[in-house]
Amino acid sequence: MALPKKVKIVDVGPRDGLQNEKEIVPTKAKVELIHRLADAGLPVVEAGSFVSPKWVPQMGDSAEIMKTITRKAGVSYPVLTPNMKGFEAAMAVNAQEVAIFGAASESFSQKNINCSIAESLARFEPIMAAAKEKNIAVRGYVSCVVGCPYEGDIAPEKVAEVAAKLYEMGCYEISLGDTVGVGTPGKVQDMLKAVSAVVPMEKLAVHFHDTYGQALANIYAALEMGVSVVDSSVAGLGGCPYAKGASGNVATEDVVYMLNGLGIETGVDLDKLCEAGRFISHVIGRAPASKVSLALGARC
Amino acid sequence: MALPKKVKIVDVGPRDGLQNEKEIVPTKAKVELIHRLADAGLPVVEAGSFVSPKWVPQMGDSAEIMKTITRKAGVSYPVLTPNMKGFEAAMAVNAQEVAIFGAASESFSQKNINCSIAESLARFEPIMAAAKEKNIAVRGYVSCVVGCPYEGDIAPEKVAEVAAKLYEMGCYEISLGDTVGVGTPGKVQDMLKAVSAVVPMEKLAVHFHDTYGQALANIYAALEMGVSVVDSSVAGLGGCPYAKGASGNVATEDVVYMLNGLGIETGVDLDKLCEAGRFISHVIGRAPASKVSLALGARC
Repeated sequence: MALPKKVKIVDVGPRDGLQNEKEIVPTKAKVELIHRLADAGLPVVEAGSFVSPKWVPQMGDSAEIMKTITRKAGVSYPVLTPNMKGFEAAMAVNAQEVAIFGAASESFSQKNINCSIAESLARFEPIMAAAKEKNIAVRGYVSCVVGCPYEGDIAPEKVAEVAAKLYEMGCYEISLGDTVGVGTPGKVQDMLKAVSAVVPMEKLAVHFHDTYGQALANIYAALEMGVSVVDSSVAGLGGCPYAKGASGNVATEDVVYMLNGLGIETGVDLDKLCEAGRFISHVIGRAPASKVSLALGARC
Repeated sequence: MALPKKVKIVDVGPRDGLQNEKEIVPTKAKVELIHRLADAGLPVVEAGSFVSPKWVPQMGDSAEIMKTITRKAGVSYPVLTPNMKGFEAAMAVNAQEVAIFGAASESFSQKNINCSIAESLARFEPIMAAAKEKNIAVRGYVSCVVGCPYEGDIAPEKVAEVAAKLYEMGCYEISLGDTVGVGTPGKVQDMLKAVSAVVPMEKLAVHFHDTYGQALANIYAALEMGVSVVDSSVAGLGGCPYAKGASGNVATEDVVYMLNGLGIETGVDLDKLCEAGRFISHVIGRAPASKVSLALGARC
């Protein structure tokens, strides 16, 4: 199997990475992080989430962030919109791309948002209609694509079903998330085989959490299948609500290092990226959870 | 490419993992670690090194360890023997397997042991002769198989040349070490292609350091090529003398988790292995450098 020549990296650090941080990160620091990521060459920087600040206080300043950032030409700054209220708030600050989400596990959907997968997707229909009218790109997330904290293994066919639905609803790209980080390369390839039978491979992204250290091996296995969009989080920001203290999203720095070694183009400047990671890590008072960052830093 | 059905894991923690620890680890703790690893199902546990304690003080008790451990049937306890003096010392404590080593980088060989690669291998000839006479198994290590701290990239052909020489000298298995952890899956596969052209694939082991977080992806890439022996270090013990504070050997726990997920048999009990890792990590006063260990621990 030939690996892709180019990979688009979607840095989800400012949203997925920071959303579970307990201490509120200053808006100014988030804005600087987003600027630094765009400056490092990231083509997509997930900038925030229009959820209720009651549920996710860390994302309470997403509107402020969207109003403050200087948008770089050619860079997309998607925001999560769980409902029409969030979508309208995102439109009010001129978001050009939004993201919606569904789970591949019925138990996860029930326990997290108290409705079935089908019901949860139906709730996004008005957003899809409004987005179409306004020519807003919509990204779709599927969570629990390999395993679920309640159900264990998830059947690849179930993931395919949810991904197909989001694609049919009009999402331009489907990001397949291993929310609990339990995937290993064979299971990831089985899942991708099922999903790519119903959604074109070039519309698929992979989104791995490094809870069990498997993320980079899984990304490599996904590249082998033809996937060319990878979600990651600068400095490995993020965590796992199902395993406190465990690792978060795969670190963008480590992904870029692997892709550079494979001769795959990303457009990302690794040094600037590491600097961005060190900047935000300093703000939240932790060392970057990126081995590349640690190794390069130790060499300086 | 079909993955192997079984993988032999060589835990190098008690030697490669601990040798650079500054604080001397009590002999009793090392003995317990070796016992715990064998009890967890590891078929090979590298138990020590018969180098001068002037150079590697941490390994000064290897003779004591070999005399003290209870050897489990079917488990091998190799020790590193850099010269005949070391070999004789290993024989005096009834070692049944020893290891010798060569670099794939001339600069590395010159800077580290002040002689050429060819000279370094020639010095092992008396050990090979004595080992043959005594029916002692000899494992060969090749270092810098992907990159070198002085030369950068290393040509796969150079690695093949050194591996072939060690194999011709009588080593039963050749462990290919990415000493500085700079390898990525494509480079690893190129290297294995060259080496397996001159040494049978089933005689090759891979030995990755996780300095840049690439180890597990590299192991997966090696499995795809048909490699079925993997070196790793419980709790990710070890470090990188060329990047202080960087990660060490790939953690055995994380390797076993991936192999379990791939349905590849190892004979290793992951829970007992994690316990062994937590035991030695407690002794040296650090958290295990294994994401699997952290995630499973956090769930408890």
